[in-house]
Amino acid sequence: MTTVGEEMHALVERLYPLCRSITGDGVRATLDIVGEHLPLQVHEVPTGTRVLDWTVPQEWNIRDAYIADASGRRVVDFAASSLHVLGYSVPVAATMPLAELRDHLHTLPDRPSWVPYRTSYYTPEWGFCLSQETLDAMPDGDYEVRIDSTLADGHLTYAEHVVPGQVPEEVIVSCHICHPSLANDNMAGVAVAAFLAKELAERTPYYTYRFVFAPGTIGAITWLARNAERVQRVEHGLVLACAGDPGRLTYKRSRRGDADIDRVVRHVLTASERPHRIDEFTPYGYDERQYCSPGFNLGVGSLSRTPYAAYPEYHTSADNPDFVSPEAMADTLAVCREVFAVLDRNRRYQNLSPYGEPQLGRRGLYDSLGGRSDAKQAQMAMLWVLSMSDGEHDLLDVAERSGLPFDTVADAADALRDAGLIKA
Amino acid sequence: MTTVGEEMHALVERLYPLCRSITGDGVRATLDIVGEHLPLQVHEVPTGTRVLDWTVPQEWNIRDAYIADASGRRVVDFAASSLHVLGYSVPVAATMPLAELRDHLHTLPDRPSWVPYRTSYYTPEWGFCLSQETLDAMPDGDYEVRIDSTLADGHLTYAEHVVPGQVPEEVIVSCHICHPSLANDNMAGVAVAAFLAKELAERTPYYTYRFVFAPGTIGAITWLARNAERVQRVEHGLVLACAGDPGRLTYKRSRRGDADIDRVVRHVLTASERPHRIDEFTPYGYDERQYCSPGFNLGVGSLSRTPYAAYPEYHTSADNPDFVSPEAMADTLAVCREVFAVLDRNRRYQNLSPYGEPQLGRRGLYDSLGGRSDAKQAQMAMLWVLSMSDGEHDLLDVAERSGLPFDTVADAADALRDAGLIKA
Amino acid sequence: MTTVGEEMHALVERLYPLCRSITGDGVRATLDIVGEHLPLQVHEVPTGTRVLDWTVPQEWNIRDAYIADASGRRVVDFAASSLHVLGYSVPVAATMPLAELRDHLHTLPDRPSWVPYRTSYYTPEWGFCLSQETLDAMPDGDYEVRIDSTLADGHLTYAEHVVPGQVPEEVIVSCHICHPSLANDNMAGVAVAAFLAKELAERTPYYTYRFVFAPGTIGAITWLARNAERVQRVEHGLVLACAGDPGRLTYKRSRRGDADIDRVVRHVLTASERPHRIDEFTPYGYDERQYCSPGFNLGVGSLSRTPYAAYPEYHTSADNPDFVSPEAMADTLAVCREVFAVLDRNRRYQNLSPYGEPQLGRRGLYDSLGGRSDAKQAQMAMLWVLSMSDGEHDLLDVAERSGLPFDTVADAADALRDAGLIKA
Repeated sequence: MTTVGEEMHALVERLYPLCRSITGDGVRATLDIVGEHLPLQVHEVPTGTRVLDWTVPQEWNIRDAYIADASGRRVVDFAASSLHVLGYSVPVAATMPLAELRDHLHTLPDRPSWVPYRTSYYTPEWGFCLSQETLDAMPDGDYEVRIDSTLADGHLTYAEHVVPGQVPEEVIVSCHICHPSLANDNMAGVAVAAFLAKELAERTPYYTYRFVFAPGTIGAITWLARNAERVQRVEHGLVLACAGDPGRLTYKRSRRGDADIDRVVRHVLTASERPHRIDEFTPYGYDERQYCSPGFNLGVGSLSRTPYAAYPEYHTSADNPDFVSPEAMADTLAVCREVFAVLDRNRRYQNLSPYGEPQLGRRGLYDSLGGRSDAKQAQMAMLWVLSMSDGEHDLLDVAERSGLPFDTVADAADALRDAGLIKA
Repeated sequence: MTTVGEEMHALVERLYPLCRSITGDGVRATLDIVGEHLPLQVHEVPTGTRVLDWTVPQEWNIRDAYIADASGRRVVDFAASSLHVLGYSVPVAATMPLAELRDHLHTLPDRPSWVPYRTSYYTPEWGFCLSQETLDAMPDGDYEVRIDSTLADGHLTYAEHVVPGQVPEEVIVSCHICHPSLANDNMAGVAVAAFLAKELAERTPYYTYRFVFAPGTIGAITWLARNAERVQRVEHGLVLACAGDPGRLTYKRSRRGDADIDRVVRHVLTASERPHRIDEFTPYGYDERQYCSPGFNLGVGSLSRTPYAAYPEYHTSADNPDFVSPEAMADTLAVCREVFAVLDRNRRYQNLSPYGEPQLGRRGLYDSLGGRSDAKQAQMAMLWVLSMSDGEHDLLDVAERSGLPFDTVADAADALRDAGLIKA
Repeated sequence: MTTVGEEMHALVERLYPLCRSITGDGVRATLDIVGEHLPLQVHEVPTGTRVLDWTVPQEWNIRDAYIADASGRRVVDFAASSLHVLGYSVPVAATMPLAELRDHLHTLPDRPSWVPYRTSYYTPEWGFCLSQETLDAMPDGDYEVRIDSTLADGHLTYAEHVVPGQVPEEVIVSCHICHPSLANDNMAGVAVAAFLAKELAERTPYYTYRFVFAPGTIGAITWLARNAERVQRVEHGLVLACAGDPGRLTYKRSRRGDADIDRVVRHVLTASERPHRIDEFTPYGYDERQYCSPGFNLGVGSLSRTPYAAYPEYHTSADNPDFVSPEAMADTLAVCREVFAVLDRNRRYQNLSPYGEPQLGRRGLYDSLGGRSDAKQAQMAMLWVLSMSDGEHDLLDVAERSGLPFDTVADAADALRDAGLIKA
């Protein structure tokens, strides 16, 4: 039987080779494959559209690219890896000596066998990325360079999938889809998001969950620009990235620092006793940069395993499907599942009988035999919910203050609500 | 000469054997004895009276109860200890085999020689509490069981004693009087409260002190229901329980967590360098549950030695007069005395000369010889009081911030007030 | 070449011998010498002037004082050290036995070779300070005592020096000038203040800096009384005292505890990795007592090396020019320089493009090559400034939160302001 981890890993392997960028057919092909798992609403936004402080750029597509030596042998070939071309390279067709070509070559001298990932979205430039070993093996002399790309008016493409909830208030789960042949960054995040969406749809969650698959920065900015009204309804959110490497989980708080999502993720990671780390917000990273910009200041945190740039494979050819594992992705998915289970049940109640304790016994909620010292957890949970339901605290506060499991507290709240003793 | 500790212990010994419950003649007999020490205003509240979410139950009285074996020998006898009967047992007179009787028997298998304390106030039930050793020695066969009790319309009884103060704002000291033959829980608390009341009456305290002797839960709820207006004037309060065991002192904060009483008790326990512990509020315990319910949310904490359920003797026959000592009760009383001494002097002043330091020297409040590095404590205290008397801080804040003894600070405030430099 | 430390030490040596007090010609002579370094506005406030709760006292001047033995030999001589006379001694000319004289003699039995510093400003008194060794060597018998002093209506003298800034809001730097022959307390503070003023005048600072040279307590109170309106414009301030001893730097917070000056000094001391200590405000010490009295409650802290009374030489003849060093004074000056450099650049900005990140690239503020993991400090600083410029945080907050150097953050803010992306 295939585990969900294996299914997610298979999706990563299938998406991995495509040449994605912030626009273009690679993004569309990626969304087509994700769309086999869950229905997507795909948006195409024309070049030149003003989005907040930015403008949707020309669309970039590429068919072929190589550096060939004097004998015509391709020493660097886009067909072997989409990383070999500087992202958004303008077309070029020329022959030049290695000395001149070097200005357009990017390597990682410290990791001589790896190919780096580089882009130049907003400054017209062309270039190749290759391993230092390949470069070192290239003799002086003339090389034919060819990039068969197009930069032309077109569209920026992003997609959404919505799981309708009981209330119109939304949770957004966002992941970037603009990186070419990199697995952890971010096809693993895309895979976890897709499978999370499928699970959530199995029941009607409390919140409406919106999954946003968009290119980094310009895609999130485009989504924000086109959803000015919806943004008012976004109560919580999570950016998923680097979701499959072998490191422990890392949560980066929202800019607010104490948003509900921050509290819930911290609680789940702590209560589950997983090794993890919690980072304060920084204005660098993934699209939480945009969601948490001071004008929006949304309650959006970011969940990864090892955070961006903190592993040597980051933005190199070593971030390939071998670097991510079914187990790690399944673990990330499990945490997401728990986080949204807590978030969905977390409410702020008002005690309707706040003067003295209500008589729980005559409502069948309290043991009739008195005097024992081992009060049951369920009864303790009810007393805690009653005591803290003053409009100032939510159930997560109750769980953390009392030390009781969140589900026990939420069950107690349900019983008290059904007895008419508290209301949301 | 008899110490106050010995006097309190003698009172515990005298009160101990009575069969108290949440209503009934045992409560009245208890109050009669306490009334020999200080005048009590006794209240009788009729069965059926609505009190907050509760209703005053029928009154329970008991004359005799036993289990007799085939030979007529009483193997369990209420006359030997009031613990032997399940509190609020309905009457029963029957003969039944041990197998059937067992459903009505309560023991402590882990403490085979001790008798537990059990009740069933709001569910009609009958039962006996006995030691596991007694049960193990009972052969199979028929037993005569007899509980000569009455459950009938009557009254709930509680009492108050008031020490009038200089202001009508009140401090309540509350202790439960519903537990039968248990010494630490709570005849020790009753004894400490009674002797504290006597001491307070020796001078006119600042606050009006109200001592409430009432059955647990329903008694406190009844008091709260009948004192809706007075509750507005209750500024501080202390629930006294488990006041005589050999453990260190424990203070449980009010629900507010930073009420004046919380700050004062913490200060006194810390400054006196007594071993102690401070617990956060929990909605379980004694009648602070009611006083601190979110609708009232009074500044009422709870002082005990070892807290409820944290000692093995809790709610068993081992909580007898040997378990409490004159020394421990005297120590609890001493802390109460210090707490109310601080509370009574603690004020918030306003500096009437807040621009620069007032010239203390010409008012005779400052040394004339300058240049020395050892400023006197009394002078330092005056400078601290002047600096912090901005309407935001009380004298306890001054003492804690300055590290000076509270009395030194309060004396300095008196001197400054007499000099017209500050006002309350 | 003479270092600034050596220049300051030379100033201390020159000022040291003068007999200063809270009034009188010693203060004027001190200000004359300081005035050779920077122009001073000298104020003379008549005896009897009401200043806040105080009154300007009579002016004290002294010409000669001694204790002579039977042979006419001066065993204690004011000419040798101005410390020998109790400050503000009334005149005396008498012959008396040692037994009677002892009531007027002040020594330090624990430090037998040192002479203490004592005063009696507001209670008419006369006296001598001498070493215990001198006293021990004085045989019984008659002594001639003579203090040729004058207490008469006159003036209290203080001075100001202003460095005009770009805005009228003021920073005050205050040091007391009333102590006679003591070096660390406070001629070292006077010297540091004078050289700091000279440096600040070399450019036009943002704030207007006002240096106040005034006698302790009554001088600061007089300044405050005469500057009721100006006080509204004092945004920050520093009291300089004990600025030259070999101990590590000590900063005592303002009464507010989190005033900008408190935050800036803490940042500079921490960021410079100097050994230092930060003390909470106490209402004892130097003239921060007056500036921070609750009615004014100015953001004025106090910078010293070893704080007052915490070194044995304090207020004794051992606090002489050998006790202070050019290096220590230069270090204190350097910290003041850094503190005011940060304070002067510290601003609160508003992000004018708060929805999403503004596109820094098209403004030339962001690298065009993407994908690298080593974002430059300058770019990070811009992102931090944009993220935190919500009207709640100043640049110091940004520096502390981001861990970036303050100057990098301030430079980033300048670039963003020039690009029209933020405004003050």
